[in-house]
Amino acid sequence: MTERISSVDTVDVRFPTSRHRDGSDAMNPFPDYSAAYVVLRTTSGAEGHGLVFTVGRGTEIAVAAMRSLAGMIVGQPVEELLADPGAVARRLTGDSQIRWLGPEKGVVHMAAGGLVNAVWDLAARRAGKPLWKLLADLTPEQLVAQIDFHYLRDALTEDEALALLRGAAGGRADRERILLERGYPAYTTTPGWLGYDDEKLARLCREAVDAGYQLIKLKVGGNLADDVRRMGIARQAVGPEIRIAVDANQIWGVPDAIGWMRELSAFDPYWIEEPTSPDDVLGHAAVRRAVAPVKVATGEHGHNAVMFKQLLQAGAIDVVQIDACRVAGVNENLAILLLAQKFGVPVCPHAGGVGLCELVQHLAMFDFVAVSGSTEDRAIEYVDHLHEHFVDPVRISGGRYLAPTAPGMSAQIVPASLAAFRFPDGPEWAAEAQPLTTVA
Amino acid sequence: MTERISSVDTVDVRFPTSRHRDGSDAMNPFPDYSAAYVVLRTTSGAEGHGLVFTVGRGTEIAVAAMRSLAGMIVGQPVEELLADPGAVARRLTGDSQIRWLGPEKGVVHMAAGGLVNAVWDLAARRAGKPLWKLLADLTPEQLVAQIDFHYLRDALTEDEALALLRGAAGGRADRERILLERGYPAYTTTPGWLGYDDEKLARLCREAVDAGYQLIKLKVGGNLADDVRRMGIARQAVGPEIRIAVDANQIWGVPDAIGWMRELSAFDPYWIEEPTSPDDVLGHAAVRRAVAPVKVATGEHGHNAVMFKQLLQAGAIDVVQIDACRVAGVNENLAILLLAQKFGVPVCPHAGGVGLCELVQHLAMFDFVAVSGSTEDRAIEYVDHLHEHFVDPVRISGGRYLAPTAPGMSAQIVPASLAAFRFPDGPEWAAEAQPLTTVA
Repeated sequence: MTERISSVDTVDVRFPTSRHRDGSDAMNPFPDYSAAYVVLRTTSGAEGHGLVFTVGRGTEIAVAAMRSLAGMIVGQPVEELLADPGAVARRLTGDSQIRWLGPEKGVVHMAAGGLVNAVWDLAARRAGKPLWKLLADLTPEQLVAQIDFHYLRDALTEDEALALLRGAAGGRADRERILLERGYPAYTTTPGWLGYDDEKLARLCREAVDAGYQLIKLKVGGNLADDVRRMGIARQAVGPEIRIAVDANQIWGVPDAIGWMRELSAFDPYWIEEPTSPDDVLGHAAVRRAVAPVKVATGEHGHNAVMFKQLLQAGAIDVVQIDACRVAGVNENLAILLLAQKFGVPVCPHAGGVGLCELVQHLAMFDFVAVSGSTEDRAIEYVDHLHEHFVDPVRISGGRYLAPTAPGMSAQIVPASLAAFRFPDGPEWAAEAQPLTTVA
Repeated sequence: MTERISSVDTVDVRFPTSRHRDGSDAMNPFPDYSAAYVVLRTTSGAEGHGLVFTVGRGTEIAVAAMRSLAGMIVGQPVEELLADPGAVARRLTGDSQIRWLGPEKGVVHMAAGGLVNAVWDLAARRAGKPLWKLLADLTPEQLVAQIDFHYLRDALTEDEALALLRGAAGGRADRERILLERGYPAYTTTPGWLGYDDEKLARLCREAVDAGYQLIKLKVGGNLADDVRRMGIARQAVGPEIRIAVDANQIWGVPDAIGWMRELSAFDPYWIEEPTSPDDVLGHAAVRRAVAPVKVATGEHGHNAVMFKQLLQAGAIDVVQIDACRVAGVNENLAILLLAQKFGVPVCPHAGGVGLCELVQHLAMFDFVAVSGSTEDRAIEYVDHLHEHFVDPVRISGGRYLAPTAPGMSAQIVPASLAAFRFPDGPEWAAEAQPLTTVA
């Protein structure tokens, strides 16, 4: 009997991180790191796990979107799905009626991404490989066939993508060995949350250097005098050699961004991340021109490959920050990795939250082995929160991500954690009043 | 006792337009024009109506988003809400947790827009004025205070907006009189749906000219040979003087758009609408450079004011197509109208669907009276579907929208229609199987 997808189960799971202001930044003073979590189950008992990362309220909308899309997957033959996840991605993002709600943006697109990632997780488990290895073992032709080039050809054609992948074929085996031996560089955002006091900031900066990190990141944009003081403390703590990136989380308009960064430039910031609206391609380009040689980084809210295409075409960014859970899953991120390579811009993935480190490491490691062939000026963001809730958590050593070896995309949450933190009825939440903005 | 919002009631209402292929275009072969409909009720029994226009499947997600946002409105004092709808808009779009799901884009942003429009509908009813008149009677200072300039100041400052509005103050009374006497120009999309045969196309083109329209629109992008034939039929039917716009509904990549439009240029198309991804600011600019003197129009999927800002900064469009139900309501559309005026680009609102004509006419008429002061090269899209379901339907005469005079934003759907077409349990739907992609 043909194996089929028998169910698509969703869970609204929220971790009360706001109680300690972990993850606090200029736009997210009190996030509760959360996920619209999904499990595909097959008639043979196999599973694929995926998630949409959220920051609390509104997770129920992501769950609703996943449920609406799930009908396109339930009942489908598994072999067919796994043979061509790109076809699944196109179906989920291209439904002629649901598409009106985007297109290819916002919570519906994120929900599609959660489902697509779950299909890839199932594929990698089935293949007995971690996702980065599954992807690295595909041929250039197979990879290119997984990408929707429809809106991208003015910047990257199928032939150019093939040439990039073929050009990176040499040395793949060596890079895979290096990856397995030494891992992939990480940078840490742990010291720099806005909610931490100066003493904690200085201590965490020193600990980060001691732990082997070459790049740390501070949140900025709350108050200029505070930022100047905090940058001074951080620079003092880490010395002149360690890179310090700063992250404004979209708080500024374009003129504010330029003025504010002028004040911080004395402390040699490495990049300014999300200086303004993530939609403002031309704004990022203006900021980049004004703040050079400080680099401009963005991408965690880049809602689809068309936005990355433009950021690269406009010369608006120095660093591409892919996110595993913003665009429509692995397939759209393959397109973004290839666009970045075409334009010669390094990829430093956004992570943190809950599950983002676990998922995105696979994409960065695939990029190293099969696309860019380099880890120079590249690092995956790392934050040491909530990894204990994952069955296959990231492993960090000496400021580097160790390559995952378990089959899948590392997306599975421990069942006991899902049960405890399920919203609103899990025991960790049932005692609390529901947030104001969630009504029945 | 203080009057408060006592409830925010939502309805998923869908009209089975796909049964006759009304509204068929290159990306929407079978739309069911629908709405996530909302009614704010106050403790005094007053009502404000709003809606998010959708095309069928996925309306339930828009309803879920509205319900999640509703908690920010229920219980609020009405006088305070109506005194500053801009504060409501900022609260709905700026919630630090829900914002992660956009920001300011997709179904959550659209849901915020539906609620903001309902607040304005309530305000206009309370004032006893149609919305266009309520807006036109505000001072420049009051209007500017209703706009969030945070991400816009590199293109438009508060002072520039004030100057534009003050500059348009002269002649307001005259223009209001002209508007009430003669209405506002309309253009019609009725002849040009892809699903219609050649005979019907020719007949509807002739009828449109006879009815007084100076501009008609054809859907294109399905098949080039068909488009060439249909453009020929339409040009033949309307003669050389009537403008024919064409609309590709995002079907093309940038190179396709340029090639295709070259083939259609022999028939003197007036504008090409949505030639490619609505997110592709630079792509629209490239198309515009290539297809001039054919104009480029877009906006119905422009997800926020930052996108319109860039389209204008990049010189990417000749026509700004605002939509009443895509951005976060009246307030964000005020920003877009002022941006268009700053850059000297005319506004020709997108309408059709269900309710879009009813709502957006107020914005165009306000623009004429208080912002642009002109109807030259301007027209509101008109499609003659589904108006019978509105309590205060648009009135068209001689190819012009007559100014609405009833208090409010004309958003209210007839209660019997809401009951009949409620999805999935209204009598018009209960007998049908649910669409494949809607699961519980």
